[in-house]
Amino acid sequence: MPTAIEIVGSIAALITTLAWLPQILKIRRDRSAADISLATNVALASGVFLWVVYGLFIGSLPVILANSVTLLFIATIVGMKLRYG
Amino acid sequence: MPTAIEIVGSIAALITTLAWLPQILKIRRDRSAADISLATNVALASGVFLWVVYGLFIGSLPVILANSVTLLFIATIVGMKLRYG
Repeated sequence: MPTAIEIVGSIAALITTLAWLPQILKIRRDRSAADISLATNVALASGVFLWVVYGLFIGSLPVILANSVTLLFIATIVGMKLRYG
Repeated sequence: MPTAIEIVGSIAALITTLAWLPQILKIRRDRSAADISLATNVALASGVFLWVVYGLFIGSLPVILANSVTLLFIATIVGMKLRYG
């Protein structure tokens, strides 16, 4: 059985990962990313990549999984920013 | 002395926290947040709040600090989105 602490951490990880989907869908729908900061998203991608490395170091599958998916989402936003501007 | 693992985790936390500043400055400069997803930022704020709760549970000062500052930044973006649209 997971503890209450593990459940809170898992829900936190799930929310901060899936949270990116509405932003991706909005950019795709509007074909515009003018107000999105490229610097913010490139920095987030770098930082989240380091979280994946950290997860590999400490052998935490939740940290590796959540941040790998988040990295994929943020890389998508960077790609859309470069495409739609 | 911090270990290499702790240093990687700390740099990751620092980057994914400070990454939000260019987005805040951009919205302030452009007076526009039209392309920013409100749903994404409200969800991120909720999820990051749960990360703070998780940090309190496990007694991790880095998790508490990094996520408290991130929560402040994302709450600022939510406020700007509501103001500038």
